[in-house]
Amino acid sequence: MPTAPEALQAAATAIRVLTVDAVRAAGIGHVGLPLGCAEIGSVLFSEFLKHDPADPKWFDRDRFVLSAGHGSMLLYSLLHLSGYEVSLEDIGQFRQLGSNTPGHPEVGHTPGVETTTGPLGQGVGNAVGFALAERLLAERFGEGVVNHRTYALASDGDMMEGVASEAASLAGHLRLGKLIVIYDDNGITIDGKTDVAFKEDTAKRFEAYGWHVQKIDGHDPEQIRTALKNAGANEEKPHLIVAKTQIGFSSPKVGTNTAHGHLSDADVDATRLGLKWELTPFKLLDTAYEAFKPVRARGKQEHEAWQKRLDAALAKPELKELWERMVERKLPANLDALFPDFSKEKAMATRQASGKIINALAAEVPSLIGGSADLAGSNNTTISGSKVVAYGDFAGRNLAFGVREHGMGAIANGLVLHGGIRPYVATFLVFSDYMRPSIRLASLMDLPVTYVFTHDSIFVGEDGPTHQPVEHVAALRTIPNLQVWRPGDARETVAAWRGALLRTGGPTALALTRQNLEPFEGPGIEEKARRGGYVLLDAAEPELVIVATGSEVSISLEAAKTLNG
Amino acid sequence: MPTAPEALQAAATAIRVLTVDAVRAAGIGHVGLPLGCAEIGSVLFSEFLKHDPADPKWFDRDRFVLSAGHGSMLLYSLLHLSGYEVSLEDIGQFRQLGSNTPGHPEVGHTPGVETTTGPLGQGVGNAVGFALAERLLAERFGEGVVNHRTYALASDGDMMEGVASEAASLAGHLRLGKLIVIYDDNGITIDGKTDVAFKEDTAKRFEAYGWHVQKIDGHDPEQIRTALKNAGANEEKPHLIVAKTQIGFSSPKVGTNTAHGHLSDADVDATRLGLKWELTPFKLLDTAYEAFKPVRARGKQEHEAWQKRLDAALAKPELKELWERMVERKLPANLDALFPDFSKEKAMATRQASGKIINALAAEVPSLIGGSADLAGSNNTTISGSKVVAYGDFAGRNLAFGVREHGMGAIANGLVLHGGIRPYVATFLVFSDYMRPSIRLASLMDLPVTYVFTHDSIFVGEDGPTHQPVEHVAALRTIPNLQVWRPGDARETVAAWRGALLRTGGPTALALTRQNLEPFEGPGIEEKARRGGYVLLDAAEPELVIVATGSEVSISLEAAKTLNG
Repeated sequence: MPTAPEALQAAATAIRVLTVDAVRAAGIGHVGLPLGCAEIGSVLFSEFLKHDPADPKWFDRDRFVLSAGHGSMLLYSLLHLSGYEVSLEDIGQFRQLGSNTPGHPEVGHTPGVETTTGPLGQGVGNAVGFALAERLLAERFGEGVVNHRTYALASDGDMMEGVASEAASLAGHLRLGKLIVIYDDNGITIDGKTDVAFKEDTAKRFEAYGWHVQKIDGHDPEQIRTALKNAGANEEKPHLIVAKTQIGFSSPKVGTNTAHGHLSDADVDATRLGLKWELTPFKLLDTAYEAFKPVRARGKQEHEAWQKRLDAALAKPELKELWERMVERKLPANLDALFPDFSKEKAMATRQASGKIINALAAEVPSLIGGSADLAGSNNTTISGSKVVAYGDFAGRNLAFGVREHGMGAIANGLVLHGGIRPYVATFLVFSDYMRPSIRLASLMDLPVTYVFTHDSIFVGEDGPTHQPVEHVAALRTIPNLQVWRPGDARETVAAWRGALLRTGGPTALALTRQNLEPFEGPGIEEKARRGGYVLLDAAEPELVIVATGSEVSISLEAAKTLNG
Repeated sequence: MPTAPEALQAAATAIRVLTVDAVRAAGIGHVGLPLGCAEIGSVLFSEFLKHDPADPKWFDRDRFVLSAGHGSMLLYSLLHLSGYEVSLEDIGQFRQLGSNTPGHPEVGHTPGVETTTGPLGQGVGNAVGFALAERLLAERFGEGVVNHRTYALASDGDMMEGVASEAASLAGHLRLGKLIVIYDDNGITIDGKTDVAFKEDTAKRFEAYGWHVQKIDGHDPEQIRTALKNAGANEEKPHLIVAKTQIGFSSPKVGTNTAHGHLSDADVDATRLGLKWELTPFKLLDTAYEAFKPVRARGKQEHEAWQKRLDAALAKPELKELWERMVERKLPANLDALFPDFSKEKAMATRQASGKIINALAAEVPSLIGGSADLAGSNNTTISGSKVVAYGDFAGRNLAFGVREHGMGAIANGLVLHGGIRPYVATFLVFSDYMRPSIRLASLMDLPVTYVFTHDSIFVGEDGPTHQPVEHVAALRTIPNLQVWRPGDARETVAAWRGALLRTGGPTALALTRQNLEPFEGPGIEEKARRGGYVLLDAAEPELVIVATGSEVSISLEAAKTLNG
């Protein structure tokens, strides 16, 4: 039901005033997007978004991603107006150390924030991951249990970033029809008018990806409403809503790149005057909340109805177990027993061991869903007996990402953030660079993504220097909260995969070989390797200590034996 | 003049036979693209490409980029047939250590190879850089001196990579009409049919970028010819020629992903039989060279005519000096005197010092052309008094890359490879990850690109963890042949920029601060800093040694003084 026009306008005005006040108080920040998208945000959060502010983690809520994370004051304002635990006092602490309203939205830090954004393009990729997770889980649990939309608000910068292009192409391919991206087409970037560097026809580009595209005036609530309704009525294609807006709307700097950042005191005062807002900072009239009044009750009602459907569905023991395994992340009690026993195997590449491990675990760890950026065969990532996920067929567990490493990384983050999926994604180690910004964000967000990086060293040989990783393991090790394993034989690969699976607070990178490696001798290698490092060959009074990982361990062992005479 | 059909077919057949023989001899490699693109390559190299095989470095040659570097046997075959120093013996050594026919093309290693490719998407970005360099230099030296096309051959994988999307969008924006990309649309990637992950309408996408698009049968010489002619006749837009080909054409594995890699002996034999080729491996009939006979003479003639035009143009002393400064990379004799004197300045951010240095050098170092990924103001990279480079106006020196860091990196590599431009490119240090694959390739190719990375530490503060680089300096330092400077005050920034400018064999990354830094005391800081490290505060018998770079040096100095009491 559409909100009364006055109520909606009061909400939009409140967003604008909170934004200029918060950015003024912080002395730094970005007013442009919140001022430009206040109507979009108000209509979306008050009329369309399925959410229960009393339980920001409700599993079947619609997801909202502010891909243009610098516009964080829009999100904080909307969360406050909707009734999340973001108070006016919190907003008064915008960008202060320890506040729950940081400069860019951070998941896990502020109730209602779904993902950490700021580095442009990533949020669009995350949103594709959310929408893909939704389809994968709806297929497994039914649409009574999983059936929600994913919304994202993106800026010009998001549209220019390659990671978003890659993810958008894959979303079109998979026809993720419950994904709705609103593009804040304000024609301004930090350096000035976008046409200084960006004249493409973005709407046409997204049509080429297989998206349904609408163009609207982003300040007209009725047009926003109609576009969102149309998008909701067509689930055959993902949706791009190109919303023409004026950056910094209602401020004296409207339509200029000055409005991207923060406003002068005089401009803040003029903005407030223009909006007829005479209250002290961080105070709102009751009318500001009018449009959002139905939100909590509606959310509660929908949530309760869903809970009943969930309870009914989980009456089936197999679905209950699946729910525990996937959504509640419960690992099988006999996890260690599930790993293959490599103790009697001959020389084997660790990528091959990894492939056997994935397949050995697959049946009991149904959340393990993953794939490769067009190197599934080389990366040994295919779950045999399972199909490639495709439009109309989301039952499979093999994801074909195409040659889109960066999009894959951002989508994997969205799969974890959604919940229910424990993704592994793969490419050659040398191409880990292509997805590094997403790996960094997974680390920052504590997301247990597993990266299967094969062809781990100069032993790839004849493909030459473009394909020989030299610095990549060292470079990955510099990322805080990323765990990097470089197993030296098949049994160490068990330890590595076990570490990845048991980890809940961050991602794991596995650097695996193409070439065969001799197995280490002796018992308990799987257990020893869990420590990260251990002694393979000892001497009473060593004159020389050789330290090695992965590809080089068996060579080093040989060297040590030779040196020992 | 079109080549006789039989001669062209003989050339295409020779390419196919050399390819299967070379890959068989190596035991590894990729036959799919060379078999599929033999006609495209033959028509392009024999009839259209302006080149002088006797002088692969002729400045005004057309550039050809094999973006799909795994198809290297196509390029080596074409170079051999055209008369470059790539012999049949060299081809017999395909993928062998020390040969000049490595697995992926490597610039500086094989005459006629313009850039190192293999990591997908990069070549398309390089090609945009070549085409941009051509326009920049044509504007400065006139079209009598610089007037050539840039061709690229790209695969499905190139089309999927975000770096290529970013570069293509910018090429459309700048309307680089002498750029012609041929897309080998064979419908197959390593993992199978492309439609497993790639169903977008690529032609429409490129139209959306502002490109002119043609679709042809890539096995029909007449259609190839017509498309290349059309492309040559319209310089208002960059060109995409979508060439439908059959991967592995002429082999029993035609049209399958098996043909992407190498063929079995039986398949090689069958291919040769089908092509009626009964010679021993690495032997060619004279007819194979027939189509290429006019190439050398035509190249020589065009080269000589150009030399006369160049000599005439350089009769003007100002153009001669400009040529020396730009194309011959001659730095001013008084380089050191050109740098600003910061010895009497107060506290200053090193990004600000960098901006002053760029502007102080700009007049005397005309090859210094650069810009930022939409952060020119924050990165301090604008050359004042110079315009932003735009379609119809390539006289400026400020490049606006838009929010496209990765495309920027790949384009910068192309600008250096072309010759004449000494680019600097900029973003926040934390976003260096977005362009890391291009930085790695610049390092591998010994290209003196300068990276201006500002906002170098957690001192960016309120923007929060997404914008605070923690591991980035360490991670950049792991890349072999990348020189990383993190100056601690304005005078150290002089040393860093001087190091970057004097460097000819590789790229340089400058990590610069947003916040002001106190200047170091004492004389000769500029000279001391050249050593990379030096003692700022000494003690006779130190109990503690404090080592610091960049942002932390002045704090460390203060700490040392406090500790000294």
